[in-house]
Amino acid sequence: MCGIFAYLNYQVPRTRKEIFETLVKGLQRLEYRGYDSAGVAVDGPNKTTTDINSNTICLIKKKGKVKALDEELYKKDSLDLDEELFTHFGLAHTRWATHGEPSALNSHPHRSDKDNEFVVIHNGIITNYKELKKYLNTKGYEFESETDTEVIPKLIKYVYDNRESDSISFSTLVERVIQQLEGAFALVFKSRHFPGEAVGTRRGSPLLIGVRSKYELSTEHIPIQYNSAPYYSVLSDMADSPKGTEALGVSAPRALFKEGVQEKNSHNRPDCSNALNFVGDGRAVEYYFASDASAIIEHTNKVLYMEDDDIAVVAGGKLSIHRMKRQVGEDPVRAIQTLQMELQQIMKGNFEAFMQKEIFEQPESVVNTMRGRICFDTNTVVLGGLKDHLKEIKRCRRLIVIGCGTSFHAAVATRQILEELTELPVMVELASDFLDRNTPVFRDDVCFFISQSGETADTLMALRYCKDRGALTVGVTNTVGSSISRETDCGVHINAGPEIGVASTKAYTSQFVALIMFGLMMSEDRISLQKRRLEIINGLRVLPELIKEVLSLDEKIKAIADELYQQRSLLVMGRGFNYATCLEGALKIKEITYMHSEGILAGELKHGPLALIDKDMPVIMIIMRDACYTKCQNALQQVTARSGRPIILCCQDDPDVSKNAYKTIELPQTVDCLQGILSVIPLQLMSFHLAVLRGYDVDCPRNLAKSVTVE
Amino acid sequence: MCGIFAYLNYQVPRTRKEIFETLVKGLQRLEYRGYDSAGVAVDGPNKTTTDINSNTICLIKKKGKVKALDEELYKKDSLDLDEELFTHFGLAHTRWATHGEPSALNSHPHRSDKDNEFVVIHNGIITNYKELKKYLNTKGYEFESETDTEVIPKLIKYVYDNRESDSISFSTLVERVIQQLEGAFALVFKSRHFPGEAVGTRRGSPLLIGVRSKYELSTEHIPIQYNSAPYYSVLSDMADSPKGTEALGVSAPRALFKEGVQEKNSHNRPDCSNALNFVGDGRAVEYYFASDASAIIEHTNKVLYMEDDDIAVVAGGKLSIHRMKRQVGEDPVRAIQTLQMELQQIMKGNFEAFMQKEIFEQPESVVNTMRGRICFDTNTVVLGGLKDHLKEIKRCRRLIVIGCGTSFHAAVATRQILEELTELPVMVELASDFLDRNTPVFRDDVCFFISQSGETADTLMALRYCKDRGALTVGVTNTVGSSISRETDCGVHINAGPEIGVASTKAYTSQFVALIMFGLMMSEDRISLQKRRLEIINGLRVLPELIKEVLSLDEKIKAIADELYQQRSLLVMGRGFNYATCLEGALKIKEITYMHSEGILAGELKHGPLALIDKDMPVIMIIMRDACYTKCQNALQQVTARSGRPIILCCQDDPDVSKNAYKTIELPQTVDCLQGILSVIPLQLMSFHLAVLRGYDVDCPRNLAKSVTVE
Repeated sequence: MCGIFAYLNYQVPRTRKEIFETLVKGLQRLEYRGYDSAGVAVDGPNKTTTDINSNTICLIKKKGKVKALDEELYKKDSLDLDEELFTHFGLAHTRWATHGEPSALNSHPHRSDKDNEFVVIHNGIITNYKELKKYLNTKGYEFESETDTEVIPKLIKYVYDNRESDSISFSTLVERVIQQLEGAFALVFKSRHFPGEAVGTRRGSPLLIGVRSKYELSTEHIPIQYNSAPYYSVLSDMADSPKGTEALGVSAPRALFKEGVQEKNSHNRPDCSNALNFVGDGRAVEYYFASDASAIIEHTNKVLYMEDDDIAVVAGGKLSIHRMKRQVGEDPVRAIQTLQMELQQIMKGNFEAFMQKEIFEQPESVVNTMRGRICFDTNTVVLGGLKDHLKEIKRCRRLIVIGCGTSFHAAVATRQILEELTELPVMVELASDFLDRNTPVFRDDVCFFISQSGETADTLMALRYCKDRGALTVGVTNTVGSSISRETDCGVHINAGPEIGVASTKAYTSQFVALIMFGLMMSEDRISLQKRRLEIINGLRVLPELIKEVLSLDEKIKAIADELYQQRSLLVMGRGFNYATCLEGALKIKEITYMHSEGILAGELKHGPLALIDKDMPVIMIIMRDACYTKCQNALQQVTARSGRPIILCCQDDPDVSKNAYKTIELPQTVDCLQGILSVIPLQLMSFHLAVLRGYDVDCPRNLAKSVTVE
Repeated sequence: MCGIFAYLNYQVPRTRKEIFETLVKGLQRLEYRGYDSAGVAVDGPNKTTTDINSNTICLIKKKGKVKALDEELYKKDSLDLDEELFTHFGLAHTRWATHGEPSALNSHPHRSDKDNEFVVIHNGIITNYKELKKYLNTKGYEFESETDTEVIPKLIKYVYDNRESDSISFSTLVERVIQQLEGAFALVFKSRHFPGEAVGTRRGSPLLIGVRSKYELSTEHIPIQYNSAPYYSVLSDMADSPKGTEALGVSAPRALFKEGVQEKNSHNRPDCSNALNFVGDGRAVEYYFASDASAIIEHTNKVLYMEDDDIAVVAGGKLSIHRMKRQVGEDPVRAIQTLQMELQQIMKGNFEAFMQKEIFEQPESVVNTMRGRICFDTNTVVLGGLKDHLKEIKRCRRLIVIGCGTSFHAAVATRQILEELTELPVMVELASDFLDRNTPVFRDDVCFFISQSGETADTLMALRYCKDRGALTVGVTNTVGSSISRETDCGVHINAGPEIGVASTKAYTSQFVALIMFGLMMSEDRISLQKRRLEIINGLRVLPELIKEVLSLDEKIKAIADELYQQRSLLVMGRGFNYATCLEGALKIKEITYMHSEGILAGELKHGPLALIDKDMPVIMIIMRDACYTKCQNALQQVTARSGRPIILCCQDDPDVSKNAYKTIELPQTVDCLQGILSVIPLQLMSFHLAVLRGYDVDCPRNLAKSVTVE
């Protein structure tokens, strides 16, 4: 939700056109995070570094996708596209509306005032915006949008207007602002008062910084600069002071930001006490701020992942990281890392949509998930990221698997086999509900956090909640360096490769495989489970071939979609190992076709949902030859007894089922607990074809965004 | 699902018209269990007790509700309605179709052959009917319906045709038949070969027998008569012999049913070793077989609840109970009990529908649930049925709460407060999924089974599953004497009074209150929880008044239903304590209006369901002033940002919410964990009005039945 991109070129001459192109390209890579509106902030014409009045900032915003903004940019006569700018800082933002409808007015960047003294781009939700807005209103600041974000530029201007000294730094202003904010944010600021300077910060929402220079970087380990200033309230006279605010007078003395003061590095890390505390040495360099790595990879593979409450400052071409006070156990260094991603991984190729490409990648992506982890000769499974914690996990009292949306479905899909292979109780939880309920968590629990992006806000908060209670935390993500992969005690990267389509497909099957592998690893030492393990490992070995077989049904599935696409509702029913398939299939259809589809546990049919069945209600049933086969056939009888005309996903050559079906989609059979990997694929394909037939943009479903980095 | 009723008058003269009236009235009381078709079997004209050829059985069946059958009965010219029958046995059945569409042909009673030698009524599902049918086909038996049931009369005829002696008893035939059956059943048999005799049996589905006589019964404790015959297979040459069958030749010797042989009673029960082993002494008596007590109460309050695999026989006016072999720990006596039910409780009164009556009964039914259990002076809660097990429950490792449909929702609704008050992990499980998954259950688990009828097949099977694994089992039912209340170690009767409407309403709120009371009882000794307990107890005290306040909104809710009733889809959203309300409200709407309604966790909105939102999709949101208030407002912002027009259930005087609402339904506020009792009621009323406006029969939703006594 919302994509942030910002580009700073220092002593690297770029025409304004090139800068626009960079900003737009960055947004396009992030468009999966939202596409309700987009906007940029760049320097206006006639910029000088000395006269503040000549430093103007120009905002250009447009409702709709990034493409619409792109067209808009070239309509601005007032900006000379060919003008060459040696040093420049530009912001760009693509929005997924949460507060206020999609419109140019509600678009980012948001500004402090009509003169654009401060502009900001924001990803996240400010939960105390109403109180802040009320306060700032009383101080005479006027708001122009319905967004939560707008309090931020207003607030920084308020702090600036009430500064005690003209020598205050940009980062100090930002530091004071974020002390007042509650909720989640990644922010990048630009100001007329600090030309050529950039400040970025985050809490809860992701933000990383790419660095590109033809010179070698002065350091790859940046020591954090700590500010020992006490908690500082700029809103001392605010009636409803935010929780935890220690009210101090605006004019009360407090330590200014102490540049250069830093703590000694006392950790087992490369000793950087002598290192420079910034990157860049005043020579030509470019910086890219972005919500995720895919927007950066085409420029550089050198990135720095920011942590919560880090303030990153670029001034004079130098990047430094600042924090308030050092906490116990905190890593006092930020490392510049090298991305392993390839550009071609984030290109669409010959497919109509990223989602389609990703569905067809599944024979390879599941192999990548297993690569180096399963040895099919010795039937051993080793997940490197969990190896050292295995003993501890085996001693636990229960497993809690937490996720949202598709990731939650991966947990549901593997719950039974995990219960069987680990012999532990397994709870699966929707992260938001888990938090709402203040669920009891104990020191002897092991908690798994499933998230493709590794940034899902609710899952991340659940992780912190469990960590606070002393549970062992395990991440299962697709994004190296993501918040979840960094904050968990251990974890598994599913290695499915970048997933761009908003509707998750290959990440689901890879999460599924990763969780199965965990179960296999847990049961390695159990004699009574060896037969079962072997059966599953053999199933995994041939899985890629079977996935290819399922993908070859694409034409047939399209033909069924041709019949269904004008329907308004659709029920997907199954039980046992395929219950999760129903939930996931229905979610795919909901997400990208806007048909009201619902996954229904076939065992609950008689307790209500059967009332919906008649000859007109489209029904998809999943009936595989497993332990639930007879029970599923009962459900089928009940549906046909009510004149339902089910489309059935079944095993090849099953006349008992197909004679009662309106249509069948016949799938190769595999081990019961892996069948869900095969049975979800026809539903992925179905949702894709339905969306295309209904005329929707598959990769950009309305109202949605890929990584839900707000609560 | 499916209602069974049978009536035997022995030496009590009744005209055929009176018998029809009794049978039809019995079916009408059971109609909530199914109303796809109905049928009766009665003696034909010219009956004698000596000449088998003159003993004819007449079957009358009709598709549709019982009313249609009733009209049909009086069209039969061949039957003299005024003929007085001194001794007669009639069967009646109302069907809820599972196998084979609703039609006269698929209606019960089913018969052995064209001459109606044996006829049977069945509630349940025979899971191995395909194998049996195949076998009987090879033996030349011809089938006429698509039902699973029809194998039963065919099979009893096969056993009869292959009998080794003409002195074989009716009960021996039935005993041999049920040895071959897998699945669930309650059965009552009638035969030309055994005029005036009745045999009933059950496994998994409920069956009870009412006894009426102007004479005192010869005994109220009937010792069971055990048959020591070995397991006997009548299908020795069947290719796919059912699991566990010990194949014996059809002509192989085996002990016949030994009448009068019984084991000594060795238990702590009234010593009945000298008692008669049957009820009735040859004097005038009437017997009523029925699926539940509501069909019997207007005739007699003396009933006998049958246990699984009991065979009840009435011959010569005497009722006796037979079983195969005595199992260890089995109760060797069946007691005649006295029903506490009142006839008026099962009458509709001035309401349009039972469901409506039951919604409006809730101020009283919740009081009945609390009566004698909560002392508001001392703030103590005592659930008599759990008192003796409380220590054991407190020592457990976790609570597992299991149910189906509405009962499952009651578990979801109270999960958080149970977690809070018991400080134990609480898992909630759909019974069918719990069984499908072979969920690990341990000796130190405490398992709750929630079921209004106490007969829900999946929940009952889950109960047995947990019992086998040594867990302590606790029942929460509304039906004294039901299978679940008998088979659990301890339990709570919710005392909501009989619920007739197929869509459960007052049972939900009473289950809710019962689970809350359990939590209060568990936390009585915790100092840190006293404040919270007191708050909840005070909330319960005023709850009936608040429910009345909510019910007074009926007109307003009807007005909203007027606007909505032509819609095809409807989303109900909320989170935290009100998530269950959404699930339950959506289920109500689904069940009786056939609109595709879905309960959605508001926290999952951004992970998919938000794609469904536009200005046309009707949305109901629940936003109460509790810990989720801010998060729910975020969800509201997201919905309105997408032009959604939500109808909001909120607290009184909440301008922040109501200004963003299309309509509001303002509810009185209560303790967070009790709010769901109030917030579900508008949705119950809404579903009622929607169904009436759409022209549907509220108490008889299509395709559904009340107690789901088949898997």
